Amino acid sequence: MAFKPLHDRVLVERVESEEKTSGGLIIPDSAKEKPAEGVIKAVGEGARKDNGELVAMSVKEGDRVLFGKWSGTEITLDGKEMLIMKESDIMGILS
Amino acid sequence: MAFKPLHDRVLVERVESEEKTSGGLIIPDSAKEKPAEGVIKAVGEGARKDNGELVAMSVKEGDRVLFGKWSGTEITLDGKEMLIMKESDIMGILS
Amino acid sequence: MAFKPLHDRVLVERVESEEKTSGGLIIPDSAKEKPAEGVIKAVGEGARKDNGELVAMSVKEGDRVLFGKWSGTEITLDGKEMLIMKESDIMGILS
Amino acid sequence: MAFKPLHDRVLVERVESEEKTSGGLIIPDSAKEKPAEGVIKAVGEGARKDNGELVAMSVKEGDRVLFGKWSGTEITLDGKEMLIMKESDIMGILS
Amino acid sequence: MAFKPLHDRVLVERVESEEKTSGGLIIPDSAKEKPAEGVIKAVGEGARKDNGELVAMSVKEGDRVLFGKWSGTEITLDGKEMLIMKESDIMGILS
Amino acid sequence: MAFKPLHDRVLVERVESEEKTSGGLIIPDSAKEKPAEGVIKAVGEGARKDNGELVAMSVKEGDRVLFGKWSGTEITLDGKEMLIMKESDIMGILS
Amino acid sequence: MAFKPLHDRVLVERVESEEKTSGGLIIPDSAKEKPAEGVIKAVGEGARKDNGELVAMSVKEGDRVLFGKWSGTEITLDGKEMLIMKESDIMGILS
Repeated sequence: MAFKPLHDRVLVERVESEEKTSGGLIIPDSAKEKPAEGVIKAVGEGARKDNGELVAMSVKEGDRVLFGKWSGTEITLDGKEMLIMKESDIMGILS
Repeated sequence: MAFKPLHDRVLVERVESEEKTSGGLIIPDSAKEKPAEGVIKAVGEGARKDNGELVAMSVKEGDRVLFGKWSGTEITLDGKEMLIMKESDIMGILS
Repeated sequence: MAFKPLHDRVLVERVESEEKTSGGLIIPDSAKEKPAEGVIKAVGEGARKDNGELVAMSVKEGDRVLFGKWSGTEITLDGKEMLIMKESDIMGILS
Repeated sequence: MAFKPLHDRVLVERVESEEKTSGGLIIPDSAKEKPAEGVIKAVGEGARKDNGELVAMSVKEGDRVLFGKWSGTEITLDGKEMLIMKESDIMGILS
Repeated sequence: MAFKPLHDRVLVERVESEEKTSGGLIIPDSAKEKPAEGVIKAVGEGARKDNGELVAMSVKEGDRVLFGKWSGTEITLDGKEMLIMKESDIMGILS
Repeated sequence: MAFKPLHDRVLVERVESEEKTSGGLIIPDSAKEKPAEGVIKAVGEGARKDNGELVAMSVKEGDRVLFGKWSGTEITLDGKEMLIMKESDIMGILS
Repeated sequence: MAFKPLHDRVLVERVESEEKTSGGLIIPDSAKEKPAEGVIKAVGEGARKDNGELVAMSVKEGDRVLFGKWSGTEITLDGKEMLIMKESDIMGILS
């Protein structure tokens, strides 16, 4: 089953980053959440400018991206957990 | 009785997705709501750009779509429960 | 006495929809309000675009419409209860 | 003493509408406020569009109008109570 | 010492209006604040439109104006209490 | 060490105004804060209009200005306390 | 591992500023937070104007910048703590 995101939305599959916590007690010195990591699985055709033209998407299928930990809406496609979010929730591309 | 949505609104009939919960205790590891599934029954003519032109709708009658669980307003048409929502509430098209 | 709505406002006379509740106890399975039904009695000349042109109204006198249950402001014209609301409060046209 | 409203503001003199409550107990079946009635006494030159042109006002001196009961700011001019409000607070013209 | 307001700000000297309360008890029949009165002492060069042009100010030095009782920021210039406010806080010109 | 503000920000050094409170009890007859006084030390190149052009700044190095008492972010440059704020926080120029 | 920020985001490595607190009791005479200092490590291609053109970034790799203490999202790249933030969070460039 395929899923075509609308407008400037993307379909993302979350991947576990390799970040390891060294053993021992954690002293929370930062309240900031780190972003999550994922791979783009499908992209919409882009948002529309005020004059009606499309703005091309900045990410494409296969891009490895970072996004806010609480971004997006979860869906299950063919048994896999995916996330639908807006391109603006994507912070950047890892390469 | 027919219903013609205005502007960028769509008429959606909800369908039950086949998602089955495997038996046993559920440990809620995610507070995120999954989107709902439905079929487009009628579409408006589209929103208007600042310069007054219409923006064509991205969904059409018959499309199977995902939308936020709490999106839309319920109406009863010929005894069937339908939802009126904005196209922007539609997350994407399943195919 | 006539009433001419300004801008993108419309004058609506509410009609009771035929929706009947089957007898017995009601178990509220949905917190969603259903929209109300009415007939358009007068329309404004439309909102103005940024460049100053008028956007034609999408409804006309006599249209049977659905609108949010709490939309509009009540007025009494020649002894009849009417509602003044914005066209954007109209969800669509029944036909 | 004359008063010239600025921009898209209007000067309104409130008039008592003839709406009479029939004697007896009032059972408040509606929490909605009815609009107030008044006569336009002076109008500004209009709001400015993004490109700097003026948008002509839709009401003129002498128009009998409806407006939200709590709209506008009260002023006293030559001993008369008047209201300064924005044209967008005017719901429509009675004729 | 001179003060040149920036953008669409104006410098206003408050004047006491001649409104006198007739002696005796006051029965507060209106919770609405009446506007204050003042004289324009200096004006900015105007706000800028989206295309970068200036929008000429609608008030000029010497205009007697009404403004919201709580509008503006107080400053003391050469021992006089003045108010800096935006032109949009000015409701109109008395003449 | 030099500091170049970005966009429409300015670098301001606060100066104490000569406003003296006459001795004795203070009866707070106004809850309004008076603005603070300062001297512009550096200016950004200006904000960008929607079409991408720069809007020239209305203040320049050396201008003596008034600004909201709580405006801006404090920084220490070469041991001096400075404030970074947006030009829109500047109310006007004293001369 | 490289990280390419999207849109008008930048990748910043925080540096400790040399600001030293003199020993002894601190009497908090200011509730204002001072900005943090960092070095730009990567920049996006810029935000898009309404007409779809890119707005060039005002900072470049290597710039020493000030930014709000709580701006940005922390990420770990090759073991180093970095911050992803929007260019608008950058207050200016030190040189």
